[in-house]
Amino acid sequence: MPQQTQISKIGEFGLIEKIREIVGISIDDNLIKGISDDTAVYKCSPDKLQLLTTDAMVEGVHFDLTFTSMQHLGWKSIVSNISDIAAMGGVPRYAVITLCLPQKISVEMVEDLYRGVVQACKKYSCLVVGGDTTSATGNTVISISLTGEVDPEKIVYRSGAMVGDLICVTGHLGASHAGLKILLNEKNKYLNDTKNFKSNIEQYKTVLEKYLMPKPRLDISKILTQNIKVNSMIDISDGLASEVHHLCNNSGVGAEIWEHNIPVDSNSQRVAAEFSENIIDYALYGGEDYELLFTLTDSEFEKLEKLTSDVTILGRIVEQPKGINIIRESGERKLLGASGWDHFQSKKEQ
Amino acid sequence: MPQQTQISKIGEFGLIEKIREIVGISIDDNLIKGISDDTAVYKCSPDKLQLLTTDAMVEGVHFDLTFTSMQHLGWKSIVSNISDIAAMGGVPRYAVITLCLPQKISVEMVEDLYRGVVQACKKYSCLVVGGDTTSATGNTVISISLTGEVDPEKIVYRSGAMVGDLICVTGHLGASHAGLKILLNEKNKYLNDTKNFKSNIEQYKTVLEKYLMPKPRLDISKILTQNIKVNSMIDISDGLASEVHHLCNNSGVGAEIWEHNIPVDSNSQRVAAEFSENIIDYALYGGEDYELLFTLTDSEFEKLEKLTSDVTILGRIVEQPKGINIIRESGERKLLGASGWDHFQSKKEQ
Repeated sequence: MPQQTQISKIGEFGLIEKIREIVGISIDDNLIKGISDDTAVYKCSPDKLQLLTTDAMVEGVHFDLTFTSMQHLGWKSIVSNISDIAAMGGVPRYAVITLCLPQKISVEMVEDLYRGVVQACKKYSCLVVGGDTTSATGNTVISISLTGEVDPEKIVYRSGAMVGDLICVTGHLGASHAGLKILLNEKNKYLNDTKNFKSNIEQYKTVLEKYLMPKPRLDISKILTQNIKVNSMIDISDGLASEVHHLCNNSGVGAEIWEHNIPVDSNSQRVAAEFSENIIDYALYGGEDYELLFTLTDSEFEKLEKLTSDVTILGRIVEQPKGINIIRESGERKLLGASGWDHFQSKKEQ
Repeated sequence: MPQQTQISKIGEFGLIEKIREIVGISIDDNLIKGISDDTAVYKCSPDKLQLLTTDAMVEGVHFDLTFTSMQHLGWKSIVSNISDIAAMGGVPRYAVITLCLPQKISVEMVEDLYRGVVQACKKYSCLVVGGDTTSATGNTVISISLTGEVDPEKIVYRSGAMVGDLICVTGHLGASHAGLKILLNEKNKYLNDTKNFKSNIEQYKTVLEKYLMPKPRLDISKILTQNIKVNSMIDISDGLASEVHHLCNNSGVGAEIWEHNIPVDSNSQRVAAEFSENIIDYALYGGEDYELLFTLTDSEFEKLEKLTSDVTILGRIVEQPKGINIIRESGERKLLGASGWDHFQSKKEQ
């Protein structure tokens, strides 16, 4: 383990200096002030809408430091915000980051966290422009706010779904929850037999990566906004079931979700089977997949499928009175419960 | 005590509904989406710079719920952000609010917190446009990010102080710390003799208000940006000493602070005397006064004093090698330590 320095050793401003070194000098054509003044300052172009989102991760709620590295945590914290920007058809721009840090968090751990943040910022073309660091008597909190911009003609809301629209999703679902299951299981194995524990997770690489380093779907968002008329869109942070409900409630429509169309990959299926669980439940209620859920007409979908194969049709928008149902392969219909991850519910309603 | 509902009773989305009711429909000419989608959406006017700041308050670090009401906490949390916008010469616009809430926090407490936020937002013309609420296993955290805008010709940085500038401050200093001292003392009296405790704080109204409901100095900021050429500015959140150091370090200059000029009011002086302490220490190291510290030439100050009497000269900018000194009335010079409130230092360096 490399040298660990208590934050109290270098103080708040020493810590900020360290962070600034890692973030580097944040600058682009429009940014006038990044980290170095009371606020970040940036110009707005007249033909763009500005976006602003915020998302926090709390230790013991969103992450477990026994199996989440600080770098993964940093990556994931900013990606969850970028995903919100992608869901509007926008591109991310400037982030401010608040850290609440208990005594156990060392300078090096904060540096690692920022490395993860900056790694994602570089990959997805946004900049850290400010923040606030404070001590905490409780658990670690990372709270990020992110601005973005979007062409006013291209912006997509969750409220625009039309009866008859196809419901589509990017990538595959449930993998993030499968990754979490593996990590929790490894932790338990370790706690039960610390002496003889030997980690054996190489075979689960793809689901672990999906949980620890999810990718926001700016790629598909870009294809959509440049070429396709999408009627509504939302990102899947809390599980498919919950997001379908959000989208339908905001649009005043119902939905049919075709269970056998829900895209899941074989690695996730294998993990669910190992736990004698259903991968479809992971997809519906697991969350943190950060894929995009969107609706569009059949003719727009025909255009889309020529541009990407990474999108699956999983249902159709129907009139609101018909409700939100999941249709089994057998033809059986079942009301789809709304419950994704709700931080304040002690138990999922499934 | 009114009815208390556990957040788990209504769930995350129930809570958001409650918050939305209190915030109301956030709308103005440029806002396209407030609370109701993945991100807030707002237009930028071509002739304005956009500002973005973030500031968090953590229970046990920034506030003590035994003597801070949730409404005061909400007010103060947004005001600390507005104050940053004022320090750039800007006006606040859109806020996103993240809450990390342990089980002990009820729905009603969150409503009260938002009432305080909205009260300040109405007074200072900004809007809550989004946020994130999550449970917490540790202490309550409120993290706010706020955008603002400013005329590119009028923006003031902390880095522009010039040798020869007068150093000025708005209002008076140390009152917030005096208020905190009273509240801590009342708490101790209560804990020492719960049965016979009788609160007696009416006489301390002004200092308590300064601590619990500080006012951002948008009034003076407006006068300055409309009429006066200010070379540098910063808000006093961490104590005068700390802020003078920030301003000087960012500007590459030194400073003389004339101790006998530091503005303190009689109520704060009385409190300090009751604790056998020095009100000047409260002003230098206490923090949370949210006044503005700025520098300008003598001739600009002559213009300013015709427009407001709520500004005091308390020193002059000097060459950097001369350092940052405080000058006693006796003529004695002393290096001014940088230490304001540093969250990661276990003890102030005073």
